[in-house]
Amino acid sequence: MTETMKRIVLASRPPGKPGPENFRLEEEPLPQPGPGEFLARVIWLSLDPYMRGRMSAAKSYAKPVEIGETMTAGCVAEVIASNHDGYAPGDLVVAPLGWATHGISDGTLVQKIDPKAGAPLSAYLGVLGMPGLTAWVGLNDILEAKPGETIVVSAATGAVGSLVGQLARLKGMTVIGVAGGADKCRYAVEELGFDACLDHRAAADAKELGKQIAAAAPDGVECYFENVGGKTLEAVLPNMKTFGRIALCGMIAWYSGAENPAPAPVVWGAILRQRLRVEGFIIFDRYDRQPAFVAEVAPRVADGTIHYRETVAEGLENAPAAFMKMLEGGNFGKQLVRIGADPA
Amino acid sequence: MTETMKRIVLASRPPGKPGPENFRLEEEPLPQPGPGEFLARVIWLSLDPYMRGRMSAAKSYAKPVEIGETMTAGCVAEVIASNHDGYAPGDLVVAPLGWATHGISDGTLVQKIDPKAGAPLSAYLGVLGMPGLTAWVGLNDILEAKPGETIVVSAATGAVGSLVGQLARLKGMTVIGVAGGADKCRYAVEELGFDACLDHRAAADAKELGKQIAAAAPDGVECYFENVGGKTLEAVLPNMKTFGRIALCGMIAWYSGAENPAPAPVVWGAILRQRLRVEGFIIFDRYDRQPAFVAEVAPRVADGTIHYRETVAEGLENAPAAFMKMLEGGNFGKQLVRIGADPA
Repeated sequence: MTETMKRIVLASRPPGKPGPENFRLEEEPLPQPGPGEFLARVIWLSLDPYMRGRMSAAKSYAKPVEIGETMTAGCVAEVIASNHDGYAPGDLVVAPLGWATHGISDGTLVQKIDPKAGAPLSAYLGVLGMPGLTAWVGLNDILEAKPGETIVVSAATGAVGSLVGQLARLKGMTVIGVAGGADKCRYAVEELGFDACLDHRAAADAKELGKQIAAAAPDGVECYFENVGGKTLEAVLPNMKTFGRIALCGMIAWYSGAENPAPAPVVWGAILRQRLRVEGFIIFDRYDRQPAFVAEVAPRVADGTIHYRETVAEGLENAPAAFMKMLEGGNFGKQLVRIGADPA
Repeated sequence: MTETMKRIVLASRPPGKPGPENFRLEEEPLPQPGPGEFLARVIWLSLDPYMRGRMSAAKSYAKPVEIGETMTAGCVAEVIASNHDGYAPGDLVVAPLGWATHGISDGTLVQKIDPKAGAPLSAYLGVLGMPGLTAWVGLNDILEAKPGETIVVSAATGAVGSLVGQLARLKGMTVIGVAGGADKCRYAVEELGFDACLDHRAAADAKELGKQIAAAAPDGVECYFENVGGKTLEAVLPNMKTFGRIALCGMIAWYSGAENPAPAPVVWGAILRQRLRVEGFIIFDRYDRQPAFVAEVAPRVADGTIHYRETVAEGLENAPAAFMKMLEGGNFGKQLVRIGADPA
C-alpha cells in the first residue's frame, strides 16, 4: 500500500468571512521522519476560532499561516514511525500537526497521552486540552474569581465557556451564560447547571440583552469571561459592578468584521467609570499552569462531574466547511474533525 | 457691609461641547453656618475635566450636578465663621465648595492646610492635591511602574500628566509625553525633564503619531498613563509591549464627542493580542493613599525638584470660559480660578 498524506493549505487570505476559495486540499507521498523526528497519523483534529486570526497577515500574537502552508491545528495522533528517542510507534500524543492526515514532529509542543487515564482521546483537544486550560486559567488566574460572586460567560456552550461556567459553579459562584439559540441556552442550564443562560439571538439589540442580564443579576456582575465582543460585550458592560474584572479571551463576533461594532468610547468609558480591570490573555503564555489544571480537572472529567459536548465533522475534506460553520456559531461544544480511526 | 455670595449653577445640560448657555451666575445673601457647620470664603477654585461628566445625566461614578445646582469643584478657602469644633475663623482648608465665592461645609471631605509647610496655597489644588494624588496612585498602584521601563503619558503637561512624567523620571523610567502644541512639548522636555514629547496636533493622524512613538520607544512601551482617548490612544496601542499595562484615568478627547472615535475592536483587539492589562481608576476611591503620597512628594515640591505650572483665570465670572477653553486643551498646567485674596 502506497499511503499518501493529505493536507489543507491556505489558498488565499479572506478579507472578511472565510469562504471555500480560501482553502485547498493537497495530496502528496507520505513524508519520512528525519533524525530526531517522528511521523504520526492524525486521529482527531481540533478547530478553534483563533485560526481565523492566523489566516490574516495582520500583526497578531502568532505568526500568520503563509499562503500555501498547512492550516495550523492541534491534533490527537498516533506515532507510526520514529527516529526520536522519546516516542515509539503506538504512542498517543497531542501535537500541533495542522489540518492534515499525517505530520512530522521533533517533539516541540507535544504532550503524551496516558491511555490508562481512561479519558476519551478527543477530550485532550477539549475539556482536558487547550480550551480547558484556557477556561481554568481565565477563571482562576485572570479573573481571580471568588465564591459568592456573579460571572457572565459568553459563548457559554463553547469548548471554553462551558467549562468556565461549570468550574465557576463548583466554586460557588452565580453563573449567567450568554449563547446563540434556545437549544444552547437550555443545555447550559439543564445539563451544565448554569443559573441562567440568555439567548443573544433572541434579543433585538444590546440594550435588550443588557436588561435581561440585569434581571438575572440584579446586584450586578463581578466577573465577565469575554469570548465574543459585539452585542454581548455591549450588553454586559453597563451591568459590571464597580471594580469588576474582565478576562478578554476572544472576540469572535468581531473577527470577521461581521458585526457593526460599538465605538471605542463605549468600552473605554465603562472601564473608567466602573473602575474595571480588563486583562487580555493567550493560553500559549500559560502552559506552566497545565499540571495544576490537569490535577484539578481530570478527576472531575473522569467521575462525570464535568459535562462536555462535541461537534464532530467526518474527514479532512470537510474541515473548511466545519470551520466556517463554527465561526458563525453553528457548532455545539468543541468542534472536532475525525481524521483517522482509534488505535486498535 | 452686606456681603453677598455668588455662585455658578448648571443652567442646562450640554449635548456635546459645553457653551456659555449651560451656565448661569446667581447672587444671594451670604448664608450662615448651621450647627456643626462652618462658612468659608473661597480663595482658589480648581477646574478639572471630570466636571464635564458631572454636567451630563448619564450614569457615572458620581452623581450628576442637577439643573440649578452649583457646579462641583474643589477649592482652597479660609474659614470666616464656624459652629464646627474642628474649624476656627482663619483656618485654611481644601474643601468641595463648588464654583462659588463662599460655601458652607460640615467638614466632609475637608482637609486642613498647614501654612507652615511653606507651599503656595494653590499647590493644594494641583501638585499636592487631587491631580497629584491621581498621578502618584496611577503610576505606583495601577501601573506598578518599574525602573527601566518606558512610559507614555498623554496630556503630558496637564496637572496630572506633568507629575506622572516627573515621578517616572525620578523612578528611572524612560518618559515619552504626548501633548498638544510645540510649546507644551518643549516645556515637557526642557523643564520637566521628559526624554521626549510628541505633538499630537502636528501629527496628521493616529498612524503618524504612532510612528513617532515607535521612533521614540523602539523597544516598545510597558506603561501607558491614559488621560485622553482619541487619536493618542490609537497611536499608543500598537506600540504597547506584550503584557503592557494601561492606567485609564481619563478620556478627555471623547468627553464631548468631539473626536471621531475608533471602533471598539481596535481597543479590544490590542488588549487581546498584546495581552494588556487595563485598569480604570478614580481618585475618589483612593484617598487612603493620601498620607503616603504627601510624605513622598511634598518634600520634592518644597525643594524644587518637582516643577509645576498653573493657568489662572481671574474671578468667578470667568470660570465657565476658562473651563471650556481647558476642555479644548487651551490651558497649560493646572487650571485655577482666583476667587479671593490670600489671607492677610
